[in-house]
Amino acid sequence: MSYSYKYLQEFTTAIFMRMGCSEADGDAIARVLVAAELRDHASHGMIRIKEYYELWKSGRVNATPDVRVVHETPSTAVVDGDRCFGMVAGMRSMRLAIEKAASTGTGWVATRNSNHFGIAGYYAMMALEHDMVGICVTNANPLVAPTWSVSRYLGTNPLAVAVPALNEPPFVADFATTPIARGKLAVAEKKGEKVPFGYVQDAEGVPSDDPGILRRGGAMLTLGGDRLHGSHKGYCMTAVVDIFSALFSGASFGPFVPPSVAYLPVPENQEGKGTGHFFGAMRIDAFRPAAEFRAEMDEWIRTFRNAKPAKGESRVLIPGDPEREAEERYRREGIKLVPAVAEDLKAIAAELGTYFGE
Amino acid sequence: MSYSYKYLQEFTTAIFMRMGCSEADGDAIARVLVAAELRDHASHGMIRIKEYYELWKSGRVNATPDVRVVHETPSTAVVDGDRCFGMVAGMRSMRLAIEKAASTGTGWVATRNSNHFGIAGYYAMMALEHDMVGICVTNANPLVAPTWSVSRYLGTNPLAVAVPALNEPPFVADFATTPIARGKLAVAEKKGEKVPFGYVQDAEGVPSDDPGILRRGGAMLTLGGDRLHGSHKGYCMTAVVDIFSALFSGASFGPFVPPSVAYLPVPENQEGKGTGHFFGAMRIDAFRPAAEFRAEMDEWIRTFRNAKPAKGESRVLIPGDPEREAEERYRREGIKLVPAVAEDLKAIAAELGTYFGE
Repeated sequence: MSYSYKYLQEFTTAIFMRMGCSEADGDAIARVLVAAELRDHASHGMIRIKEYYELWKSGRVNATPDVRVVHETPSTAVVDGDRCFGMVAGMRSMRLAIEKAASTGTGWVATRNSNHFGIAGYYAMMALEHDMVGICVTNANPLVAPTWSVSRYLGTNPLAVAVPALNEPPFVADFATTPIARGKLAVAEKKGEKVPFGYVQDAEGVPSDDPGILRRGGAMLTLGGDRLHGSHKGYCMTAVVDIFSALFSGASFGPFVPPSVAYLPVPENQEGKGTGHFFGAMRIDAFRPAAEFRAEMDEWIRTFRNAKPAKGESRVLIPGDPEREAEERYRREGIKLVPAVAEDLKAIAAELGTYFGE
Repeated sequence: MSYSYKYLQEFTTAIFMRMGCSEADGDAIARVLVAAELRDHASHGMIRIKEYYELWKSGRVNATPDVRVVHETPSTAVVDGDRCFGMVAGMRSMRLAIEKAASTGTGWVATRNSNHFGIAGYYAMMALEHDMVGICVTNANPLVAPTWSVSRYLGTNPLAVAVPALNEPPFVADFATTPIARGKLAVAEKKGEKVPFGYVQDAEGVPSDDPGILRRGGAMLTLGGDRLHGSHKGYCMTAVVDIFSALFSGASFGPFVPPSVAYLPVPENQEGKGTGHFFGAMRIDAFRPAAEFRAEMDEWIRTFRNAKPAKGESRVLIPGDPEREAEERYRREGIKLVPAVAEDLKAIAAELGTYFGE
């Protein structure tokens, strides 16, 4: 079954308003979830509504938060999300980073006491229309072991960077700092398939190809997979994202990041407050005339797009190409939801006194 | 043969002064090269003096540069290195980032028209004594292919981040955004050994275990090694470092970055000016009281240091641990140079009318 992105936007806004969100907050949540669908990251799209709804029902998310700036300087701020749906703090924080960049050249906002905020790339891309480079990272519930450890102390902690060009579409990198997102393990397990070595290890730290190993004390690995292939560099990356997200803001770090699902308990002796994010906006004319930078960025993009493909490959991609192409297609053709997700949405809608689909 | 770091510092300062550098510039170059030796990154230490000397002799490096700020805002600046030895622009740029952070919360400096600047970690660590987080990236001569390509369009582009703690030593991540540094290929080749798959590919883009493949049209791979293991994320990382280093400053990007050795020609139709770097300093009290941040960072470090080791491993490391331990040892015991490096230094010293060693 296929749905127009406009319908999903309206439905999602309405569903969150029924949980008590303001129209503006419902709209923000819907925009980020629908953007994930459009950009072919369905793992961060409509499927999350059920988790968000369960978290709200359990009282772990606040639908009427007092999101506020608790500290600031000319180029920095700390935002407390008051246990909001992550998009509410995310939008507010990135807008603040953009405002600060407009006045001092760059703006940097650390956010605590938030929750899962969808795709990091959405916030980074908010900078583009302001002639700015956008940056966004977030920590996430712990599933990943540092190199040489079996302790699940880190999340899949994504990093997003968006850079405007002139005539070319923007460069948009948005990636988990692990070889794969967790969703791929669930898909392989459902299909009864093994995964390549380099994704997960067992409870003793021995490399594994079992996608279900996380439920038996296993852990995901950092980018690189093992020490020989640079997993310590992946560990550095994931750790830096955790530190930027939690330490600047006072959010929970590493093993203390609260789960994004209601059926897992919040750890005791919690360090810090909630999930943390970090946002940056850099005005390009704080460095060079914007037109000059943009034209040079066109050159960068064309140079890499015209790189020679490897044997058997047809083209070299620029970060953001696959997502942009998916978005063009899905805006035209509509967004397909897997039946289980559509069923969940129907059930939630019914509970909240409305309906999903025809 | 072993040398005290103080002797290497004095010798190196003197050698660069004989090439025409001011005492301050010679001292800056020496500090960064000796720091690389102390921190067990000999590939970025005294061995580089020969390459720097050859570049200077060929007229590609300017020993008496007019390093200057060409653009600035309250939190940003662009520095032109006037073809200096990279450390000269590096030190100046990072100091400027720190000054700007002191007044506006954060400082960001993009640097062009520079050369190889040693270990990125040195500059990031300059922020620590100012109660700041330090960041430093640089692009480098192209050896690395984007995912699905055979074109050597990217460098091993390192990223360094230094974060101060309270009673614990600082967190210092400093790593090439590729599985290995190039030096490891040269070592394997000299020993007649193969390298693991995931480091390099041949001229057609087929995975290879031949450490000499770069001389036959091969390329290094990005972190992840292949698409299945996330090399596209490594490509994103390396590309982001290139864009931050070159696009903000107007330096040469990707395939146009000039070689760091005199025997390779500078490419024609050069885009931009020289090697580019990017520096950031973030005052921690621009976000939270410094004492609070530092105490929490101690917690972070202790938590991860006490993570459970994998089977067969004795401990879990914090980024910066191995380098700090090496530095303590080499300060005490002296720095060993391989005979070929000591011979090169003797020959250079003789050409410049002085001597190396006893």
